[in-house]
Amino acid sequence: MIRIAVDAMGGDVGPSVTLPASLAFLDGHPEAALVLVGKPELMAAHPLYARLRSHERCKIVDASEVVTMDDPIEIALRRKKNSSMRVTINQVQNGIAQAAVSGGNTGALMAIARYVLKTMDGIDRPAIASQLPNAAGGATTVLDLGANVDCTEDHLLQFAVMGSALVAAITDNPAPSVGLLNIGEEAIKGGETIKKAGKLLRSASDSGDINFYGNVEGNDIFKGTTDIVVCDGFVGNVALKTSEGLANMISDFIKAEFSRNMLTKIAAIVAYPVLIAFKNRFDHRHYNGAALLGLKGLVFKSHGSADAFAFERALNRAYDAARNNLLERVRERIAHAAPLLGAAQIALSTKMALPVSSIPVDSPVSTPAH
Amino acid sequence: MIRIAVDAMGGDVGPSVTLPASLAFLDGHPEAALVLVGKPELMAAHPLYARLRSHERCKIVDASEVVTMDDPIEIALRRKKNSSMRVTINQVQNGIAQAAVSGGNTGALMAIARYVLKTMDGIDRPAIASQLPNAAGGATTVLDLGANVDCTEDHLLQFAVMGSALVAAITDNPAPSVGLLNIGEEAIKGGETIKKAGKLLRSASDSGDINFYGNVEGNDIFKGTTDIVVCDGFVGNVALKTSEGLANMISDFIKAEFSRNMLTKIAAIVAYPVLIAFKNRFDHRHYNGAALLGLKGLVFKSHGSADAFAFERALNRAYDAARNNLLERVRERIAHAAPLLGAAQIALSTKMALPVSSIPVDSPVSTPAH
Repeated sequence: MIRIAVDAMGGDVGPSVTLPASLAFLDGHPEAALVLVGKPELMAAHPLYARLRSHERCKIVDASEVVTMDDPIEIALRRKKNSSMRVTINQVQNGIAQAAVSGGNTGALMAIARYVLKTMDGIDRPAIASQLPNAAGGATTVLDLGANVDCTEDHLLQFAVMGSALVAAITDNPAPSVGLLNIGEEAIKGGETIKKAGKLLRSASDSGDINFYGNVEGNDIFKGTTDIVVCDGFVGNVALKTSEGLANMISDFIKAEFSRNMLTKIAAIVAYPVLIAFKNRFDHRHYNGAALLGLKGLVFKSHGSADAFAFERALNRAYDAARNNLLERVRERIAHAAPLLGAAQIALSTKMALPVSSIPVDSPVSTPAH
Repeated sequence: MIRIAVDAMGGDVGPSVTLPASLAFLDGHPEAALVLVGKPELMAAHPLYARLRSHERCKIVDASEVVTMDDPIEIALRRKKNSSMRVTINQVQNGIAQAAVSGGNTGALMAIARYVLKTMDGIDRPAIASQLPNAAGGATTVLDLGANVDCTEDHLLQFAVMGSALVAAITDNPAPSVGLLNIGEEAIKGGETIKKAGKLLRSASDSGDINFYGNVEGNDIFKGTTDIVVCDGFVGNVALKTSEGLANMISDFIKAEFSRNMLTKIAAIVAYPVLIAFKNRFDHRHYNGAALLGLKGLVFKSHGSADAFAFERALNRAYDAARNNLLERVRERIAHAAPLLGAAQIALSTKMALPVSSIPVDSPVSTPAH
């Protein structure tokens, strides 16, 4: 039986979202179990608490502290050792659960997950991967979305390999295509790191580690040109937030225009099937649940402002990943790509002892970000 | 009289867009004049050519070559010295026109403009600035959009100063607010360059050079949190293209859903006022015409796929900029900010002679991009 550990306190509201979502998840997955972690007095105040407490597939674990949305990472990591977030991840570390889900502070979650679970062999930096709907009718998986602000070509290759394992695990596609996010053909095509990453990803495609498509531009994320788009965390975060901003503006505009007067209100009723189709297709709640990849355990991040529907989607995603052995798949793919990653790492350690000018620019050489 | 030089061949189709737009522009601006530059045989084939040729405020200048959308920059710059693009920019350089507009290859346009017009004193790198509609009912000016892939904090300050001059010139706001594009508070807040840029922009705000708001995130572009958002060209280009991709997907989806069957077609008729309001508000053609800032002359870039309506908007924008003395405003603002830019540049040259470790991380020190 797959068991998912849930940080019941995480997110903007905590139990009033996580408890209904947990019960709905259990109802929908007769083969799954949950470990609900939270402050007992806060959980107990919720009307569904009693049902979850007595549920045969739900275990309640107490935590005495909560990581807040604006706790500095240091506080979350060093001072709140009995936080619901930390105890949730401990459930994965000690083998009780096969995946953890939290809607709390992303920076703290990543830091605690790295500290407790450790980074997988062959991975320098874990990454955050999420899905965005695309015009091809599916979803594009984008990583990194903000865990790493300065990435080398090595990191980008690791993201490509981990992203491929993720998409292969949750879809029927064993060889999802990978695009490297770059800027328009008309302009200078990226800096040195991007150029080197392109060559490294091409080599990884030749060795069967990934299915590399080539460079893609920002609009390709929504076109669905590739199944996966890799980029550094700064760029990925800006792309994600910019899209959220535009989607919100359009959605607010449509609402306001249809509420403008009696005529437009009637129009809204007539246009209802279209508006519902629109809502279903682009509702970001459907895509909730970002994967923290590259750790020795599965951790999923729900959006802090998720409602119960969205939080349940994150639980589903964690369950699917655990059920389809995502962890083992990432491990296998990284091991298979080791010669490429290894070559880059050997070049890196060589670089330390050599003057920079002795390294040909074209070789897949890693440069430390800092 | 303000005279605008127009590259009649630029863009995906050339004269069939640029000629109707030019005539409409002349009709709408009795105080303006144009210089139309192109291959005579190609322009002459268009039915409006005769009217433009005999128009008292339109001068035709011949060019023997055309820069294509996929000409490498070197070819455009070194081999096609009599291209319509080059000759158009020459009109600004020799004082015949006060601004140039082209829909051609962005990389070539920037390279030729830099070569012919030269970079303004105090500016290291020209930038591309454009507007995006925002939820506040106005438009957010974003730069750089792809001219510079690796930027130092100095470049970002220059962008902030130039963007402020642009917005002040084309709106009634003498002190437009500036946001520095960064990633979420939850994650690590940007790399070293962004942190240093934040301090430098703060100093520039203290000295009255800009009106600095602070860090903004991707969604703030569409919220309209600030009038201007500055970022490096890689990030700006990805944000712009990602937005275009999302807007296209949503627009295509709405069209498809309203055409699905007889009922939805009727709904489209009833919802017509809302759909028209939507189209007017988010039609990217309204925002066509990106400014190339930081050159000793005004150059505007129209989208390659612009139609006559969009191209006319780019002509309007160039005209407004010329009429409102954008060039002089940028020059004055850069001169005013010289002590800050100078300080950074002195620090840069000092850095060359000092070990890196001797420079405090917190000081606004420029680091060379490569």
